[in-house]
Order: sequence, then structure tokens, then C-alpha cells
Amino acid sequence: MSGPLEDLPYGLPEELLIDSAVARRIIGEFIRGHLRQTGFERVVLGLSGGIDSALVAYLVAEAIGARQLLCLLLPYRTSSPASRADAEEVIVRLGCESRLVDISAIVDGYFEGPLAGEDVPSLRLGNFAARARMAVLYDHSVTWRGLVVGTGNKTEALLGYTTVFGDNASALNPIGDLYKSQVRQLSAEMGVPRQILHKAPTADLWPGQTDEAEVGFDYAAVDRLLYWMVDRRRTDEQLVAMGFAAEDIRRVQQLIARSEFKRQTPPVAKLTTRTPGVDYLYPRRRPDPTPEP
Amino acid sequence: MSGPLEDLPYGLPEELLIDSAVARRIIGEFIRGHLRQTGFERVVLGLSGGIDSALVAYLVAEAIGARQLLCLLLPYRTSSPASRADAEEVIVRLGCESRLVDISAIVDGYFEGPLAGEDVPSLRLGNFAARARMAVLYDHSVTWRGLVVGTGNKTEALLGYTTVFGDNASALNPIGDLYKSQVRQLSAEMGVPRQILHKAPTADLWPGQTDEAEVGFDYAAVDRLLYWMVDRRRTDEQLVAMGFAAEDIRRVQQLIARSEFKRQTPPVAKLTTRTPGVDYLYPRRRPDPTPEP
Repeated sequence: MSGPLEDLPYGLPEELLIDSAVARRIIGEFIRGHLRQTGFERVVLGLSGGIDSALVAYLVAEAIGARQLLCLLLPYRTSSPASRADAEEVIVRLGCESRLVDISAIVDGYFEGPLAGEDVPSLRLGNFAARARMAVLYDHSVTWRGLVVGTGNKTEALLGYTTVFGDNASALNPIGDLYKSQVRQLSAEMGVPRQILHKAPTADLWPGQTDEAEVGFDYAAVDRLLYWMVDRRRTDEQLVAMGFAAEDIRRVQQLIARSEFKRQTPPVAKLTTRTPGVDYLYPRRRPDPTPEP
Repeated sequence: MSGPLEDLPYGLPEELLIDSAVARRIIGEFIRGHLRQTGFERVVLGLSGGIDSALVAYLVAEAIGARQLLCLLLPYRTSSPASRADAEEVIVRLGCESRLVDISAIVDGYFEGPLAGEDVPSLRLGNFAARARMAVLYDHSVTWRGLVVGTGNKTEALLGYTTVFGDNASALNPIGDLYKSQVRQLSAEMGVPRQILHKAPTADLWPGQTDEAEVGFDYAAVDRLLYWMVDRRRTDEQLVAMGFAAEDIRRVQQLIARSEFKRQTPPVAKLTTRTPGVDYLYPRRRPDPTPEP
């Protein structure tokens, strides 16, 4: 390793290191190709102050130019002001459009209204907030005339550390095939602000929360395990022989199994030969322009 | 036709008539099988007062018993009181659990808060409301410990007359392979209340709104066209020879093409051989119970 990667406060597993020039080219073509295919020129994304959405903003700016990008800051009243400052730093550096939409009134409109008095665990609050952010992003998709770009990575997709129809909902996702370690590598190489690279990943559900404490895994370690298990198809025996703990293997397999539903369209009771969302599936495409009369 | 179908205020296209005993059996097995597979015993759905969600409530009650079903009434402040009365009739007849959650404070928390003063078209309001309802249903999925059952039919799925990540979001959909005409047939045969069978379908976005006026199609006519086009794979020439208007054929094809994204998981920039949501896909399953230590 050399250059921007040396300064990172965590290790990047060697087998997960990618050729970032190739990844940036493929992702750039994916973003441009998808916009062309659907007839859009702009995109909108939710910028949390974390590394995933910051990287996606950099990738979009590189692919189509920062002026085509609208970044929404979507804090809840308990969200960290530091996260917002980090998001604002990205906006200033890229020179993209931005808008602040505080989601507190939306979320509290539920939990302080119909549910007032109920003791609501933070997980339910976090899921509702993630879905409120999705609804605000999709409303801006109309006014900004841009596609909603997803910011979820491969690690959280596989572990199910996402809110279905919330943060995992988008029109396209440029980083869904990158593990968190690879997000870190690419972010360092693209110049994402240092304080974003250095802070502990958090869903920002309560002060001091970190993903790694909540999930109970170190990202570098779980990324290595996922890589050998999912991408390289190693058996449990082989994984144990490589030094992975049997209980970690089992736990990760359970997390993957429990979250299949988050990675699929809803199943439909099949009554005919062609069922929308099941087997009646076609590439997304730009509809033909209406011909001259 | 005989019995309960004779009284309907609209025609049911003959080629779309189904064997409702078979359909009910398949749908019942689908609901029970999916609950078994995922380890749940209960379901929750949003009951609008319209025919689709009423039919799903009847199908769920038949499949697993009404006591396993929670129906949420999710009105916005402009929703029709008649719709609510119709939903309440279903709840009384089935004897299921129900809860009223007015979504006005959630929706207005956005449009009267951050967007105050902006002139918001009813389509944006309707989409935001659909996503707010989804978020409320998913929160109740946790407290009720039940899966969210979808209520979208095949006609609206194909035409894209749905809100992505809103009313088209669910854990399973029992009627997604039934055209609206078939929903009507099955509803009449299962004893869905007469006033629900007889009223004009509406998304209830504003007083007097009807689907058929908004989409510009008569459901019986568009169902026939969709059936011959999608299920029976007739060519444009064959459809014209059957008497369908060329401009209707073209318009329906455009609606289908424009809404592919609503029937698929978001595309991901593919960088590896196994990409979650793209080709790393497994059946939903109940995770193995943790073995005794």
C-alpha cells in the first residue's frame, strides 16, 4: 500500500484490494449508461456524513459532473451535528447542489402522534426514519428530475444491516458490489474528506452508536469472511482451516439467510405463466418517443 | 355467469374468468407456505376500503384465520369517510383485529414543514402518502409480529399504476397475478361487501377521483388487452386483427416499458461474480434454529 491508504486508521484486507481505476471506470459507465437508458440526466442522493454516501457523491460527480447532483441532508432531531458538518464539507468540495430537509416533523408525526406514549425502541425509530428519508428522496426525484442513487454497500446488503424499502431503496446503486473495506479504499483514493475516512461507521441512531459495536463485527474481519464465503465459495471446513471461527461462520450465514427478503422483489402467488416481478421481467428501457402524428 | 357475478355493475371479460376454487387454494397455500418458510404466524395489511385490499383480507382470513390478521386503516385528512366505513365493514364481517392510524401528521410534517408554501401536485402527495403508509405498516409488522401483505393487482403492476416502495412494497403479494377483473370475480364469489364491489376504483387522492378516469382506460377493456398481449403473447398485428385499437396497444406497451423499474430490485454496478440483489439470490428461508450448545 502507498499514498492515501497509508494514513487509514484500519487495515484493508489484502485480498480485497481492488484496482480502483478499473472500478471507477465501470461504475462511471454504469451511472451514465443507466441515466441514458432511462432518459434522465440528473441524480439525487441522501448525504448522511458517512463514508458510503460521500463516496457515491464523488463517483457521481466524476461520472456526470457535480452540477447534475442534488445532495439532500436529511437529519432527524437526534442526528449528530458533526455528521451534518461532514456532509456539508463534501458538498463544498464537490460544488454540487444541496438541500436540507429536517425529517423530525415527519417521524414525530407518527411516534408523537398516533403512537404517543408508547416506548419505542431505537431500531423502530431508525427504520421509520430510513423510510421517511426514502420518501423525501423520491419526492425530490420528481422536482429535481433525477434518479435516486442508492448508497448501500455489499457488506451491509449481505448481513441485512439495512432497512428494506428505506436506505436499501433506490433507482440504481453504484457501490452495492463493494465491501465496506473496498468503499474505504476507493474513498481514500478519490479524496473523500479525511474526517469521514477516519470516523467510526454509524447509523447515527443514538449518540455514540457505531455499526461495529452493534453488529458485533469488525468490518475488515467480516469483509474477509464474506469474501471467502460468498465470492470464493469456500466451504465451512475450508474457512475453519483458514482460521475463521466456526461461530462467526455460522452467525454470518444466519444473517445472510435471514435477510434474503431484503434483496428480492416481493414474492407473488403465481397463477399464470407470466407474473409481473417474478418471471415477467424486461430490461429497464427508455420508452420510444411518441412518433410524429 | 351465475350467482354472485350477475349483480356486478361491470362486465367480466369471458377469457379472464378463472376457476376461483383453484385460485383460492393456490393463494391459500402460498400464504401459509410463505409464513411457514419465514417463521411467522400473522400478517398485517392496509385496508383502504377498496376492492383489492378487501379481497386480500378475505383471502388471508380464509388461509390462516381472521385472528392472525391485523388490518390498518391509514386515512389522510382528505380521504373519503365512505372509504373508511367500507373498510370497517370488512373488519366487522371478518372479525379481525384492526387499528386506525391517521397519517396526516406524517405527511403534513413534510408538506407543511420543509415544503410549506410550495404548490404540491396531488400525484406527489399521493406518492408520499403511499410511502408513509408503507412505513406505518412495516412498523406494525414489528409490534404485531406479522408479515406485511401486499394488495396490488396485476393490472396496476403492469401499467405502473403504483407507487414504488409505497403500495407496491410488501413481504408477499397474494393477488399480484390477478387482473382487476379477476379480483372482481373472486371478490364477488368470496362475499366481499356489495358496496365495495359496486363502487368505482379510486386511489382516493381527491374527492371524486377514479382510476379509470385518471388512467383513461376501462378496466375490463385494458385487462383483455393485457391478457392477450402479455399472457397470450399476441403480436401487434394479431391484436389489431382481434379488434384492439393500435393507439391503445401502443399506449399500454409504453406504460409497461416505463414501469419496468417498479417491478425489479435496483440495479447494482457489477464488479464481482456474485452481486447481492443481482445474481446472489437464494430462496427466502427460515434460518436454522441455533443448535443446543
